[in-house]
Amino acid sequence: MNYDVAIGMLGCGTVGSGVARLLQEKQNLYAQRVQAVPGLARVLVRDLARERPGIPAELLTLDPADVLEDPEIQIVIEVMGGIEPAREYILQALRAGKHVVTANKALIARHGLELFEAAAESGVALHFEAAVAGGIPIIQTLKRSLVANQVDAIYGIINGTTNYILSAMTEAGSDFQAVLREAQAQGFAESDPTDDIEGFDAAYKLAILAGLIFDQRIDMQQIHRVGIQRISAEDIAYARRFGYVIKLLAIARRTEHGMEARVNPTMIPQDHPLASVNGVYNALLVNGDAVGELMFYGRGAGQMPTASSIVGDVLNLVAELDAPPNVLMSSPLPATAAVLSPAERVMNRYYIRLQTHDKPGVLGQIGALLGQEEISIHTLVQTKNNPGEAELVLISHPVSELRLRQAVAQIRQLESVREIDSIIRVEDFRFH
Amino acid sequence: MNYDVAIGMLGCGTVGSGVARLLQEKQNLYAQRVQAVPGLARVLVRDLARERPGIPAELLTLDPADVLEDPEIQIVIEVMGGIEPAREYILQALRAGKHVVTANKALIARHGLELFEAAAESGVALHFEAAVAGGIPIIQTLKRSLVANQVDAIYGIINGTTNYILSAMTEAGSDFQAVLREAQAQGFAESDPTDDIEGFDAAYKLAILAGLIFDQRIDMQQIHRVGIQRISAEDIAYARRFGYVIKLLAIARRTEHGMEARVNPTMIPQDHPLASVNGVYNALLVNGDAVGELMFYGRGAGQMPTASSIVGDVLNLVAELDAPPNVLMSSPLPATAAVLSPAERVMNRYYIRLQTHDKPGVLGQIGALLGQEEISIHTLVQTKNNPGEAELVLISHPVSELRLRQAVAQIRQLESVREIDSIIRVEDFRFH
Repeated sequence: MNYDVAIGMLGCGTVGSGVARLLQEKQNLYAQRVQAVPGLARVLVRDLARERPGIPAELLTLDPADVLEDPEIQIVIEVMGGIEPAREYILQALRAGKHVVTANKALIARHGLELFEAAAESGVALHFEAAVAGGIPIIQTLKRSLVANQVDAIYGIINGTTNYILSAMTEAGSDFQAVLREAQAQGFAESDPTDDIEGFDAAYKLAILAGLIFDQRIDMQQIHRVGIQRISAEDIAYARRFGYVIKLLAIARRTEHGMEARVNPTMIPQDHPLASVNGVYNALLVNGDAVGELMFYGRGAGQMPTASSIVGDVLNLVAELDAPPNVLMSSPLPATAAVLSPAERVMNRYYIRLQTHDKPGVLGQIGALLGQEEISIHTLVQTKNNPGEAELVLISHPVSELRLRQAVAQIRQLESVREIDSIIRVEDFRFH
Repeated sequence: MNYDVAIGMLGCGTVGSGVARLLQEKQNLYAQRVQAVPGLARVLVRDLARERPGIPAELLTLDPADVLEDPEIQIVIEVMGGIEPAREYILQALRAGKHVVTANKALIARHGLELFEAAAESGVALHFEAAVAGGIPIIQTLKRSLVANQVDAIYGIINGTTNYILSAMTEAGSDFQAVLREAQAQGFAESDPTDDIEGFDAAYKLAILAGLIFDQRIDMQQIHRVGIQRISAEDIAYARRFGYVIKLLAIARRTEHGMEARVNPTMIPQDHPLASVNGVYNALLVNGDAVGELMFYGRGAGQMPTASSIVGDVLNLVAELDAPPNVLMSSPLPATAAVLSPAERVMNRYYIRLQTHDKPGVLGQIGALLGQEEISIHTLVQTKNNPGEAELVLISHPVSELRLRQAVAQIRQLESVREIDSIIRVEDFRFH
């Protein structure tokens, strides 16, 4: 393969193969678009024997130095995943004056500071479009296209596995465990699904997004994170009854109490644009103070959508190899992490589902405890499940999480209350 | 006002005032983001006496030379609109080595070749993000973020006036003329609404988009254009009955018959993401061969969304003033226009509504004429409106426009047919 710009790649799994395929099949198109011919020069793999269609065997190597120390290689693509040795290799590449393109959200979220500092010191770029929302070009959009705005809020469906599970639960009325097993069988969920269903994956992506819109460094530990593992078929059915669907939302926004970043299952109105984002699709609702509301929708994962973002980053770099690093695309992060608003102060409406003994006065007791915390009720439904028992479902008016927790703690003490099954945030999408 | 990068502005109407407001109010934020302080140095206006809050009177001038010949001014923003003298001023600015940012879709669509050539000769940039879909960053997305893709199709709702009218007709069941008058009263439609309702505005924007995705120059005359002025409340009611809504779609796509670019009212499935884009919102569905389906949604017009795109272009320029023009952002257009697939060859399903005399055999006659052109019927509804008369509504399977026209011409000749009211394309969103 002939090329003007030599590219090295670390890893060659599903996404890496997609990247190699694009660079090979579209070489002529790309050459015309960036007026230089980019080509893969070396690919670090773990197994030389495995067949890799379209990648000449002589490009493969087991030795990272063949990529990281080759002075010809100007751009390194990291698609091996995981923290180590990816972190170490990327640092080496940056320090050797190579631009780096990565899809590694965990690495950027947890070690971004160190990596961006190394890039700045060497005067090279570290691009990561594919790390958030796969094929949706949200990173470049925030950094470049929306640069005239202060972005006040991002609401994202940015984890395909949980969105697939919640969509399937909503469609079929099935329970979480059944749908999870089915998703695993179909390859939409990992055999160890913790990272997805407990919201870690979404939190990594949110840390990156929140860092960009707040112009601050966001510590993963600061992100309030609730997974979907406790969402039941009953909750989804009640949501529908009240005109909502349940989505795992990643939210970063400026509020009167400060900056907020959290990932949690959220009831959103059925007619909201995010409500119809189903299956493995991702979507991001962005509110900029000049542009207003924007929504971006597309495939958040998968071989070719991810490769589209990675090769997009590569071609953008090739197009400006002779220019100094663009200030909009570099990310000088402050050394100290941002201070986010504590979750307790965040105002939300809440959905609460609880089981009570069917005795006179239960409703009055609960109402009184809510009243003490100045929580007023927007919607209330009481149904009998079994003799002597009743299910109570309510949606509150906006209340701080602190007050809600206090009220719930007291309700839990009531003799007439058997169990509090679910507490789920309800989102109104008020931006200001 | 102090600044490092002097900006001149041609025109200062609604959008221009928004641009001035952003540049002034957010100067500190922008300075931090692009590490240079951009500021308005001179503003060409038609009336010096008019009060312009936030713009110092000494910046205003009646003489274009004060902007175009000031060697200090590095970037010129054109927001005067119209073809002349905007074209002449932009050419002067480009030839004087100034970068230009414009929101002028008609000018780019009709004189893009000349303007981009002038920019290339002077080694400066001509940016036009605001010219298509207002605040939605579609131009930079296509040029930069999706550069790894061949874009196979764009389906756009890119005219707010017609979308407002069709949305209002759909909601209220009202007639076109009534809604148009209301839209005019509320400022959502011009007193002369021709440009919007007959699809010229959408066609200008589509010419720009099609040029980008086909890497070809698109002649406005080649774009097949049908407006919304003949859409009736009856058509909208039937559309709903069959599970569709009617939108004015701008479509550019690669087909087996060649490249296609057209603007026409289209029935789209109610559950399609574009179907719920209502009012003055715009949306673009983009299909890239690597990334798959993407959708972008936001405000397609208005003071601050448009200003967001213009100032975004300006800040992107400021960030790379010292670099050579980026090859991805320049648009070397071929001198000869692209050859688009003739409308006759385009395959579509069609909705046809016609009035007949209620006599035996009418249906058989029509069916026979359709059959001669190998047009098969997907859905058929016959209703009686008045004694002796019947309304016939059908939706066909896919057929070339040529065959459809031939069949319709023959049906029109039938004695039993009183009138053919409507022929509307039905879109299935099959990409390949």
